[in-house]
Amino acid sequence: MPGVDRSYARHFAVRSAAARPAGTSLQSRSPWSRATALPAGLKTNLRVAYAFSGPCLDLEDFEFDAIDSLEADAERAAYGALASLKLVRIRSAGQRTIVRVKGVEIGGDRFVVMAGPCAVESERQVMETAEAVARAGARVLRGGGFKPRTSPYNFQGLGLEGLKLLRKAGDAFGLPVISEAMSDSQVELVAEYADIIQVGTRSMENAALLATLGRCSRPVLLKRGMVASVEELLQAAEVLLANGNPHVILCERGIRTLGKLTRNTCDIVAVPLLHQLTHLPVIVDPSHATGRRSLVPALARAAVAIGAEGLLVEVHPSPKTALSDAAQSLAIPEFRRMMHRLEPYLKLWSEEHALDETAAPAARR
Amino acid sequence: MPGVDRSYARHFAVRSAAARPAGTSLQSRSPWSRATALPAGLKTNLRVAYAFSGPCLDLEDFEFDAIDSLEADAERAAYGALASLKLVRIRSAGQRTIVRVKGVEIGGDRFVVMAGPCAVESERQVMETAEAVARAGARVLRGGGFKPRTSPYNFQGLGLEGLKLLRKAGDAFGLPVISEAMSDSQVELVAEYADIIQVGTRSMENAALLATLGRCSRPVLLKRGMVASVEELLQAAEVLLANGNPHVILCERGIRTLGKLTRNTCDIVAVPLLHQLTHLPVIVDPSHATGRRSLVPALARAAVAIGAEGLLVEVHPSPKTALSDAAQSLAIPEFRRMMHRLEPYLKLWSEEHALDETAAPAARR
Amino acid sequence: MPGVDRSYARHFAVRSAAARPAGTSLQSRSPWSRATALPAGLKTNLRVAYAFSGPCLDLEDFEFDAIDSLEADAERAAYGALASLKLVRIRSAGQRTIVRVKGVEIGGDRFVVMAGPCAVESERQVMETAEAVARAGARVLRGGGFKPRTSPYNFQGLGLEGLKLLRKAGDAFGLPVISEAMSDSQVELVAEYADIIQVGTRSMENAALLATLGRCSRPVLLKRGMVASVEELLQAAEVLLANGNPHVILCERGIRTLGKLTRNTCDIVAVPLLHQLTHLPVIVDPSHATGRRSLVPALARAAVAIGAEGLLVEVHPSPKTALSDAAQSLAIPEFRRMMHRLEPYLKLWSEEHALDETAAPAARR
Amino acid sequence: MPGVDRSYARHFAVRSAAARPAGTSLQSRSPWSRATALPAGLKTNLRVAYAFSGPCLDLEDFEFDAIDSLEADAERAAYGALASLKLVRIRSAGQRTIVRVKGVEIGGDRFVVMAGPCAVESERQVMETAEAVARAGARVLRGGGFKPRTSPYNFQGLGLEGLKLLRKAGDAFGLPVISEAMSDSQVELVAEYADIIQVGTRSMENAALLATLGRCSRPVLLKRGMVASVEELLQAAEVLLANGNPHVILCERGIRTLGKLTRNTCDIVAVPLLHQLTHLPVIVDPSHATGRRSLVPALARAAVAIGAEGLLVEVHPSPKTALSDAAQSLAIPEFRRMMHRLEPYLKLWSEEHALDETAAPAARR
Repeated sequence: MPGVDRSYARHFAVRSAAARPAGTSLQSRSPWSRATALPAGLKTNLRVAYAFSGPCLDLEDFEFDAIDSLEADAERAAYGALASLKLVRIRSAGQRTIVRVKGVEIGGDRFVVMAGPCAVESERQVMETAEAVARAGARVLRGGGFKPRTSPYNFQGLGLEGLKLLRKAGDAFGLPVISEAMSDSQVELVAEYADIIQVGTRSMENAALLATLGRCSRPVLLKRGMVASVEELLQAAEVLLANGNPHVILCERGIRTLGKLTRNTCDIVAVPLLHQLTHLPVIVDPSHATGRRSLVPALARAAVAIGAEGLLVEVHPSPKTALSDAAQSLAIPEFRRMMHRLEPYLKLWSEEHALDETAAPAARR
Repeated sequence: MPGVDRSYARHFAVRSAAARPAGTSLQSRSPWSRATALPAGLKTNLRVAYAFSGPCLDLEDFEFDAIDSLEADAERAAYGALASLKLVRIRSAGQRTIVRVKGVEIGGDRFVVMAGPCAVESERQVMETAEAVARAGARVLRGGGFKPRTSPYNFQGLGLEGLKLLRKAGDAFGLPVISEAMSDSQVELVAEYADIIQVGTRSMENAALLATLGRCSRPVLLKRGMVASVEELLQAAEVLLANGNPHVILCERGIRTLGKLTRNTCDIVAVPLLHQLTHLPVIVDPSHATGRRSLVPALARAAVAIGAEGLLVEVHPSPKTALSDAAQSLAIPEFRRMMHRLEPYLKLWSEEHALDETAAPAARR
Repeated sequence: MPGVDRSYARHFAVRSAAARPAGTSLQSRSPWSRATALPAGLKTNLRVAYAFSGPCLDLEDFEFDAIDSLEADAERAAYGALASLKLVRIRSAGQRTIVRVKGVEIGGDRFVVMAGPCAVESERQVMETAEAVARAGARVLRGGGFKPRTSPYNFQGLGLEGLKLLRKAGDAFGLPVISEAMSDSQVELVAEYADIIQVGTRSMENAALLATLGRCSRPVLLKRGMVASVEELLQAAEVLLANGNPHVILCERGIRTLGKLTRNTCDIVAVPLLHQLTHLPVIVDPSHATGRRSLVPALARAAVAIGAEGLLVEVHPSPKTALSDAAQSLAIPEFRRMMHRLEPYLKLWSEEHALDETAAPAARR
Repeated sequence: MPGVDRSYARHFAVRSAAARPAGTSLQSRSPWSRATALPAGLKTNLRVAYAFSGPCLDLEDFEFDAIDSLEADAERAAYGALASLKLVRIRSAGQRTIVRVKGVEIGGDRFVVMAGPCAVESERQVMETAEAVARAGARVLRGGGFKPRTSPYNFQGLGLEGLKLLRKAGDAFGLPVISEAMSDSQVELVAEYADIIQVGTRSMENAALLATLGRCSRPVLLKRGMVASVEELLQAAEVLLANGNPHVILCERGIRTLGKLTRNTCDIVAVPLLHQLTHLPVIVDPSHATGRRSLVPALARAAVAIGAEGLLVEVHPSPKTALSDAAQSLAIPEFRRMMHRLEPYLKLWSEEHALDETAAPAARR
């Protein structure tokens, strides 16, 4: 249906179902026969809802009570958007997924900084970066072997050789490593070397890749698509979970808008919004979100303050000569300064996090 | 309400109302009391619809029958979007507004080309252009006196002097003239000299300007806002009609998207979509929609083929030296060639238009 | 570099190079050493251009003369955008790629309509559709085996079985067939059954898929990404050509914008713009571009009028029960009416096309 | 010129000028004659730059040195974008505008919270809100008399009566007041009652309104247009300053993107970006940026952490019954909780601010 906002169609279907008189039931799989026990008016409404939402509408899923007040509505609307998302949506305020990888917990009690070069370029580059970011407090090493580039004539990454160097650097400095797989046919290879597999922004809707990663045991970091809505990000995560992989981290990395002075527009409000909607951890990539190193530390602060579970930051020993993302990579001293300046904000983060866990589990979100 | 698609909320409200059992009625102004005669389930649905659509929802307006088929749905959805638009929406296939100005009919039996310079720069410029476009078949002369510019240091138009020159040129060659008013405080002055008053893309949401133009007797050409939806364009038109001015022409002039090779993206499908929704005539501005003279003639052809009622085209005797919109203004010989090449398409347009009027009035739209 | 418009950086580099004094040359691969023979001022300019455009800038490629007038500028800007696109860009007005598949020429003397169901659902459905569209004048049969769906709980297509049924239907009615491959790992299978392989809008930036299709001998129909610019569409096509496959058809299928009444916004001006930039044929998909069957015929007319080489249209024997894209699929009688009404426009298309071929090869584009 | 990024054209012009050989000068106002002392190659480049940037390009303004490194480039690009913005751009790290109004300094040593109802609805509503927000720490009272509404049938505000009530409430609780003027013809009236005049998002490009406010002595709060870029926001501010009013506060209030779960997308990175570009203070409106009260406090925290100078927040004694913006208005206890929870972040804000003022004036920005 053209221009139909399916989430709200489902939302209305929820409410139609909620209005079902006591003693009736919705049994059959055929939506019209299902509705036979209902009064005529309501039947029409269900039919309308069905028309809008199609065969994937699962009415049995809807167990909301009648809506009591306008106040509750905005909240419900968001949940309604998740009607078809059985696995990623949050079901209670305390529910929360912690992704564990080699002793690091993403979504747990400590904020997690992942850092490293955009692309692995040489052993020296990745070793030097790994050592520096580990010392400054990063707990996961990032680095690309396979690079999705827009031009066939640009540097495409070192491939397998890059993955091996990343692995070596991570092992040398005690950091689990994260790297991107660009295709279902690459998953097995990347999974051999990386502890977390990244789905890049260009791949968020790559159904074959998502299905394969869903059947893989490695944690997945799922980056939001360049112009994907929050609902679409969650739908992509649902594919991973529905295929069997519960270890999913979401990543806000900026969306494409009309501005030209920054590479993307960071939708920072997506962080608390996702916390209202899903139990999965959410991190922010301030490097891609801004595209300019001078803006990365400020956005990192905001990400901590708004409650993200971590950061993914590009760091390079010599940004000027970086083969990709030169303008947005922090030099090592810049990364150190950023980490230092984040400290008081991380202290506030931890205090609020502890509060959530004990007295008021719902407060933080 | 955040992110709520009001049009579909209204759409559902329509359907809730349509489901009303025979013998009940919706009388009271208070939506909840209004619903007292309804069965419990339906009442909840109306309540939901109300929550979404707020106080402007006028249930009495809805007189749709129960929905018979999925096929009819897309059409109805569009009508639903217009629930709060009492005056601009089309009520029968034959209904159509013709805006008449000094013998020219926009929305009538003939396609209308409006042409002229972006800004009036000198008597010679506007006289030369007026003569040339009149000879080539244009029937309205355009030209800006007051120019909305993004920088305070750019050419701002000749103002009143420009309006006088435009008037003189129009009178000399028998063309009614169109020019822009940028503020409610300018309306009286512009109305003195121009036959049609243009609302520019930056002013589509200027409530004070729209209200003043609504109380004015001059026809108004309403340009779509840079990122306005079709619904919002119609809401702006509704303000004009609600204030008393029925002589409104809509203009698709491209919306701002991500592309950089053209100035805007022409949403050409808005033309037949608007024809489904409103009785007002719709014209296309291929100059602003593309920003490049080499693309103007191709888009003009498409606009004719898709059924627009007219064109608004920038023409300049010497585009290279134009003080504004240089790259998108056609030189006079280019305009002549464009008009010549449009001829067979205009012939098809007239044939289909004649067909609509007689045998199958709904077919065209 | 953040927010830098690389195409214009290249454009300026072009001009810096064009300004090279007679007798100097740009020989070395290192851009700075290359510039040693130049006067100081110009050297700085080249350096700036290099900073903006990076290692992929190939100065030898630029052989433009000094710019003579503002008038030529818009054209040149477009060519500048293609500086890194060695293979897809047009080099002379007459140059044009014709993609040939089983006697059908896309980009040749006749307009080509491709039609069929969104997804193959059953033998009866695809046979009935194939017969009907063939009779009505379609010359390629479309149909999806593998479907990229946003929800894991939606119909995902019949897969291999769907491809076999599509093949059977195409053979039965003498139509070559087109179907989508969603991943590099699917290419071999799809290539076995389909004559043209489609890259869907969600896959336009799937680097692994593009590289694999580039090494494949089947023609490829490349759909524009949901929010891809024209430059990005061409870059994706460049990947196909750079990997060895010259048989590429581009497809404008609408981009995602703010409107809600249509599924997408058809950027119809992309058709003549692409004709200025590339020698590849360009077709329009009015089904996805609108999402509403009632708007498909109008957009099809506009696509013919603006000079597209073909259409890709969804047709279903019973749209109401279609398992995907129900609202945008034409019923068979609707498709027939659309084809009938297109006839006079196709006649004009052919006349102009013939004109291009003989007297004025550059005129059409 | 179509699709041309003027800011970068100017940027290149800067660099062309920078490349000017010692001893030459650029004197004449005519760009071509101006270039006569230059070598041929450079002349062409200036000509190109001129073609791109038009008559408003003021070459004398450019006093950049030759570019030394890629590292400096991103920063320079941003400054380049401001080439035509003579008055709003920052000229030294220490330069900063402080807007003073009745003892409150926006852009000074203390973070400023402005709060109050979307629209003034009654004396009781505005008095109750004023008292509550003053006690909770707000220092400016907001409230709309004239409301820009999308539908002519929605509540349009109390007008003059609303302004009088707002004034009364502000005076009663010692708060300066801010209210919107929607048209140049309203400025005089609003200026009589309000201490700060707001330009709403729909009016950011209203040239007549900006010019009138520029000649007014009241401070102006300029909201970013719904889809305006940062450059365009600054251009609008330049109009105010160029007309004589230096008391301008910028306001990031979210831009319209594709998401549906929030009303807008807050471009929070615009805050530090604006701090790099302009000396004007920047505040954030978390109410319009999210459209959902449950997200307002989280965004407020992020705004403090990223260094904004203040907040503009909607508060209503009974959001359920608010006549406008019901879903995004905080109830009074919610506002109190938000202010309480902001305290530790405001302490960090002050520490960093004090640091900026003394040891490292450039560090903060």
